[in-house]
This record gives sequence, structure tokens and C-alpha cells, in this order.
Amino acid sequence: MEEKRQITKPRTLSGFMELLPDKQIIFNQMVDKIRATYEKFGFLPLDTPVMELSEVLLAKAGGETEKQIYRFTKGDTDLSLRFDLTVPLAKYVAMNQNELSFPFRRYQIGKVYRGERAQAGRFREFYQCDIDIIGDGELSLAHDAEIPSIIYEVFRSLGLGDFTICINNRKLLNGLFESLSLSDKATDIMRIIDKIEKIGKEAVIEEFQDLQMSEEAITTILDFMQIKGTVPEILEKLNNLPIESETFKQGLYELTEVVKYLRIFGIPEANYKIDLTIARGLDYYTGTVYETFLNDYRQIGSICSGGRYENLAEYYTNQKLPGVGISIGLTRLFYKLNELGLLKKTEESIAKVLLLPASPNEIEKCFEIATMLRNQDIKTEVYLNDKKLKAKFKYADKLKVPYTIVIGEEEVASGKVTLKNMQTGEQQKLTVEQVIAEVTKK
Amino acid sequence: MEEKRQITKPRTLSGFMELLPDKQIIFNQMVDKIRATYEKFGFLPLDTPVMELSEVLLAKAGGETEKQIYRFTKGDTDLSLRFDLTVPLAKYVAMNQNELSFPFRRYQIGKVYRGERAQAGRFREFYQCDIDIIGDGELSLAHDAEIPSIIYEVFRSLGLGDFTICINNRKLLNGLFESLSLSDKATDIMRIIDKIEKIGKEAVIEEFQDLQMSEEAITTILDFMQIKGTVPEILEKLNNLPIESETFKQGLYELTEVVKYLRIFGIPEANYKIDLTIARGLDYYTGTVYETFLNDYRQIGSICSGGRYENLAEYYTNQKLPGVGISIGLTRLFYKLNELGLLKKTEESIAKVLLLPASPNEIEKCFEIATMLRNQDIKTEVYLNDKKLKAKFKYADKLKVPYTIVIGEEEVASGKVTLKNMQTGEQQKLTVEQVIAEVTKK
Repeated sequence: MEEKRQITKPRTLSGFMELLPDKQIIFNQMVDKIRATYEKFGFLPLDTPVMELSEVLLAKAGGETEKQIYRFTKGDTDLSLRFDLTVPLAKYVAMNQNELSFPFRRYQIGKVYRGERAQAGRFREFYQCDIDIIGDGELSLAHDAEIPSIIYEVFRSLGLGDFTICINNRKLLNGLFESLSLSDKATDIMRIIDKIEKIGKEAVIEEFQDLQMSEEAITTILDFMQIKGTVPEILEKLNNLPIESETFKQGLYELTEVVKYLRIFGIPEANYKIDLTIARGLDYYTGTVYETFLNDYRQIGSICSGGRYENLAEYYTNQKLPGVGISIGLTRLFYKLNELGLLKKTEESIAKVLLLPASPNEIEKCFEIATMLRNQDIKTEVYLNDKKLKAKFKYADKLKVPYTIVIGEEEVASGKVTLKNMQTGEQQKLTVEQVIAEVTKK
Repeated sequence: MEEKRQITKPRTLSGFMELLPDKQIIFNQMVDKIRATYEKFGFLPLDTPVMELSEVLLAKAGGETEKQIYRFTKGDTDLSLRFDLTVPLAKYVAMNQNELSFPFRRYQIGKVYRGERAQAGRFREFYQCDIDIIGDGELSLAHDAEIPSIIYEVFRSLGLGDFTICINNRKLLNGLFESLSLSDKATDIMRIIDKIEKIGKEAVIEEFQDLQMSEEAITTILDFMQIKGTVPEILEKLNNLPIESETFKQGLYELTEVVKYLRIFGIPEANYKIDLTIARGLDYYTGTVYETFLNDYRQIGSICSGGRYENLAEYYTNQKLPGVGISIGLTRLFYKLNELGLLKKTEESIAKVLLLPASPNEIEKCFEIATMLRNQDIKTEVYLNDKKLKAKFKYADKLKVPYTIVIGEEEVASGKVTLKNMQTGEQQKLTVEQVIAEVTKK
């Protein structure tokens, strides 16, 4: 009784990353390294639902963000998919204030959703790897310096080459705008500043002019952004600026403190700098801001960004919850690294050893050996289909497994097996104990 | 310029699990163990999008499943959230047939979505932890026995106490129905059989009668389901049954082969049995089926189920792709274990050591020590807020961190620190090297 059935063309939505196993393994290794570093610094795991009540998730949102949201109803419920991990964190902390210990250090690695226009390198579903430290009422400035020490460890562990953590303080910019009586245009100006690297100085000036800014103000801001030098040099230049603004002074104090701690925390000077052009357009940053760049691949853009905010959950609670955090947009970073051929290909197979029974008679022996290897944490697979040896080795090649062992009558009788290194082709006759030693040696 | 803002009550959707950190840590430990076991058996990771084109995802679905689906449109696109990990696997394998190596062994641990009626222990978002082995055209029966060996390792590693893997073969039941001329009612009968433990024998008889089954057929089926004993005893009784059906004979052959391999693969006899009442109502199982129970908590129901299917992706490709797999519904299992007080509470904190600077002057020293500990893979946190020591220890208690170290002037001067075991209260004056040895000892 064969049912008539229609074939639907299998396909994956555009803007959604779906990897082949060899790439997925590398992706997961990156996730594992990020998670391990976050945990090494004592961050607690959090896993929030992918969807929330629209009323809750969109308590603050508006403008561009809202248009991109996946929003729908199920029954009578108005639902939205999360577009970042910060809003769910705000909800969570506000809900669980009494249960959590503060400063609350949490990491969350999960997918978020934005219905952006599809284009190469833009994803509608992508991983964010976030950490935040939330205080109840207050949070030491030293945490603003702790964050770069974690960024440093994360990217060192990922082995992506030289990188620079760029640090600035929003209060410097806000104070500058204040002194120029431009506070009402601060958001627009920062959005434009953020683009300077992409669009160039001339275009920035044009956009400033469109905002009806005076030539003098434009010159002052551009001069400010052109302040370069070592950390002490920049701090000195900032100290000498004739800017009369309490906000500016507070920003300079904070930045000075943060870099003092950076030195204390032992972050190599080659890996951070003050960059006064970093504005982080997002409204809610109020103090220290970070962006991180790969020195040799600056075109990728910032690979880890974040900053200090005054109040995490003002839309959910009257309790003031200052915080500082960062986010790594891993899907985009992975895509870019792959495009540039920069993915680490240390291991592209899960199994380290593939056991090949010469005939079904040797399956038992293979399982016995597999159990011994697995008990030593060696990832091991037994090939069970009854195919020709050639087909079995074709499978091994495609799997990119580093070692194979063929088990035939002779191996069962002698107790010695032949370990084949699939990369070098080298073969060794070994006992199982020797196999374990060989396979686990660094 | 204080903005007027409205407070939205922060809340999480009902039917969506969101844990406090101590529970999330335990949940993640379970995920890690499951993943580690799956990888130890050489399964490759897969991560598919949470949403798919409805046309693709629902190529097969119908009835109950379809009603539960989260389906919506974004722009012109008709989208659905995945309700299991099997359909996305089918799509993936059909799409990537030429790139994958077969048998294709993949695991996927991810969230799936079903808009069920909300009730205690029912989740609308829940984790499934799946493995499947897919063959192109053929797949050795030995894989049907490999699966229980993985189930065995998974639940041994989770340490949930004694468990039993119950094995049956759908062809036995189908052959039996065939011999009773009841093939057209097979699906209904199996659905009823699946409920026998929940509703009892009498209710099953009633439901059978509702299907217009003859008393003789009912008796034969109930007699069949009452066949109990050791594995060899059951196989012998089945061999002696006067059932004239090729399907039945094939089922008996397969079951005999599978248990033969189970023995060969070294699974302890206490951990598996043949259970002829296991039917796994789902349509697509065609051979071996599994359910797994905690011996002391049978009321939880099956904690790991699956089976063999003829054709994974018949709605996406004409290529025949037989497979065998299992799924652990982890969210539900975790919920039940928590309810029964059975969660393993070995570690409820991420950080192993919390460093407490007596004053901001000792922050530098704390970071120096923290870096030394982290370099030895010891998860370490530095408390940075400038609070009274009492508040700092309150934080340590709430965090359930196993060790604390207070660093004051004296410690900086002497080079020795006081390690406090937070569980026993015991304090030891040690060098950092000794701290590392103490904290990492088993």
C-alpha cells in the first residue's frame, strides 16, 4: 500500500546559518572556548526563552528595532522573538531581584532574531555571547576594567591573532556636547561619529552640517576625535582641554580610573587603547564603552562591543540596577572568519578513532576496544555497515577522522592492532594500551 | 531631565522554563554529560534554525501536531517554529546528501516548540537531546543495538539510579495484527497499547471493544502483551507462537539479532529487557523501538524513547534513508527530577574560589592571584564592590562558592593567604601553589 506523496524541495531560510558538520565542529569549539573563559571569571549561566510576551519584550523598544522583530499571535497571546539578550536579562533580574546575589554576573550564549533585509553576512538568526555584571544600586568602576580583561582572555583563547580593545567614555562625548550646547543633538552626533571609519571625515562633516551645527562646533568635535597617542598622552591632552563640564570631568575621572585598573589587571598594553571616536550609538550606554578589532582584519568591524549603563531594567522596576557588559556576535564573526579563510582547523572530526571490523565477526572485538578507548575519554566510533574495506576507508576519509584501526581475525588472535594515522599514512602495530597512549599524547 | 516612564510587570510566559542560576548550573551539567556521551560515540553536532518555511517543516505534519505549531508570517513568508529535531534533520540530510558521509551520525541538542495547553510539567519550549544514525539505502541492524549502548552510557553518566531500557520491535505487533486481519486498525491499536500502563487493562479492553475488535482478537493481543520473562524466555515463547505472518517472523529475527548484539556490546543484563507492550504510537517507527524508565520512579514515564524508521526524508527526497535514533526530553526530565528532589547538587556555583580584597588597595593582589588560579583552570571571581566584609561573605554564601580567600595587607606582605572552605568553615594558611593543589584535589 504505497502512499502517493509529493516531494517538497528541502531548503533553509535565507539569513539563517546552517553548517556542515566540519564547520559546525569549529563553530562549537569557538562557543566552548568563549563559555569556558566566561566561566573561568565566575559568570553564571542563564537561559531565557526565545520568545516573550510582546508587552514585556517591547516595553522599551521602538524605531528600527521594532520593525525587525518577529512578532505574532498564538491564540490570544501577543508574542515576540527576542532580538537581543539584554532585554531578557533586564526582565530576569527585575523578576528575581530577591533570589539573585549582586553583583550578579551572568553569561548567556543564545540565538536572537532580527528580520533584517537579507544580504551576505547579515543574519536573521544569530548567536550572541554576552556577559553582564549587574549591581543593585551601585557597581564599582573596577568592573569596567574587569570586562576588558575578559575580552582579552576570550580572544587570546580563540587564537585569532592580534587584537585591540578600544576604550572610551560616553561622558567625555556628552560633556563635550554639553559645553557646545549640543546636548539635544547628542544621539544624532554619536550615530554619525560611529560611522566615521566607514564613511570618512568629509561625509561626517556633511552630516554634521545637516544637523545645523556651527563650523566652530564641528571643528571642536573633529579636533577632539583626532586626539591620538599612548594612554598617558591622551589622558594628558584631555586634562588640558578647556572643556567646562562636570560630565566631561566625571568621564575623564572614570576613564583614568579604568585604565589604571587595566594596568593593575595585567592586560598587555599592546592589546588596548583609548579611542575617542568610539561612541556606541546605543542610547543606554552612559559611561565606559568598548569595541574590539582584529588588527589585521579591521574591515570585519568590531568583534566584541559593549559598555556601562546606568540602569538595566528601568522599564521593569524602580530599583536602580547599573551594569556593564559586552556581546560577541558569534555568527557574524564566524561567517567573516570563514570568508577570510581564518577558521582554525585543528579538529574537524568528532571521533578520534574509527574502528573498522573486517567482517561482522569482528564487531564484538571492535566494541570491546571502543569501550576501553571511551573509558579513557577518547571519542570512538565503530563502523557497522557490512561494506568492502575500500568503502569503509572512503567513509573514514570523508569523516576526516585522525586514526583508524582495522580489526580482522589476526588482530583478534594476536591482541595487537594496527593504528593508522590518517594524515601521515603511518601505521603502527600496538596493544590497546599503546593505542591509548599514542592517541592521547599531545 | 528625568523621563516619565511606565513600569511593565516583568514576567515569563507560562510553559517556558527559566531557571535560577543554581538550577541552571545543574541543568547545564546534564546537557554537558549528554553531549559528552554522544560525542564519545562519534556523533557529529548539528544546529538547525529554530524556524523554517512552513511549507518545508509541515510537508508531512498533520492532525494534533499541526494544531500545536507556532506558525506566523513575516512579510510574505509563512514561517513555523520547529516542533521536533527530526523534521529539520530530514530536511538537512535531504539537502546535503552529497556532502555528508553515511552512515551519518548526528546529535542535536536544542529547543523545540509546541503550543500545548499549559499545565504543570508540560512545556511549550523544551530541550530535546537527539541522536540519529542515518544510512543511505541501508543501515546495519547492529546500529539498533548500538543505540541502547549509548542510552546506557548516558544515564550511567547522569547518575539517576537504576534504569531499564525496554526494547520491542514494531514488526512483531504489526505481524500479530496482520494475522488477526486487523492491519487497518494497527495505528489505533498501538495508540491504545501505549496507554496500558496509564489507564490499566480494563480500560484498554473497553477501547479495543470500541474499535469493533472480536473478543478473540482482544484476548490474543492481551495474551501477547502478557508474555514476560528473561530475554531468552521471551524469545522462546515468541518462537513458539502460532503466528503466520512474514512481518512477525522478520520482527522476531530482528529482535533476536538486536539482543544478541546487546550482549556482545556489553550492556549489563540488569539494564535492558524485552517489553512487548512498548508500541511507540508514532507512525514512522517500523522496527526496533525503545523506551527507558527509572526503576524507582516509573511514574515519570519514559525518559528516553526512539526507534528504527524505514525512511527519514521521504517528503524531501526519493533517496531511501533508513535510520535509528532516540530523543531525551530534557526539560521535562529535569522538571520531574527537581519535583522529586533528585537533582544532583554536586556543584551549584560556577566559581570555585572567590577572592575578597579587604580594601581597594588589595584589588591588584587579588587579580594577580586570580590570574594564577585561572591559568590552572580554576574558575575564580574577584569581589570588586567596596563593601563591608560581612556583606562580602553574605555574597559568598548566596553564591554557594566552595572557597573564599580574603586578601588584606598582611597577606600581601607575607605571600601566604587564608583559604576558607565555605562548607566546613575550615581555614588554612597557604601559598598560592598550595591553594591550587588544595582546590583541584579530588
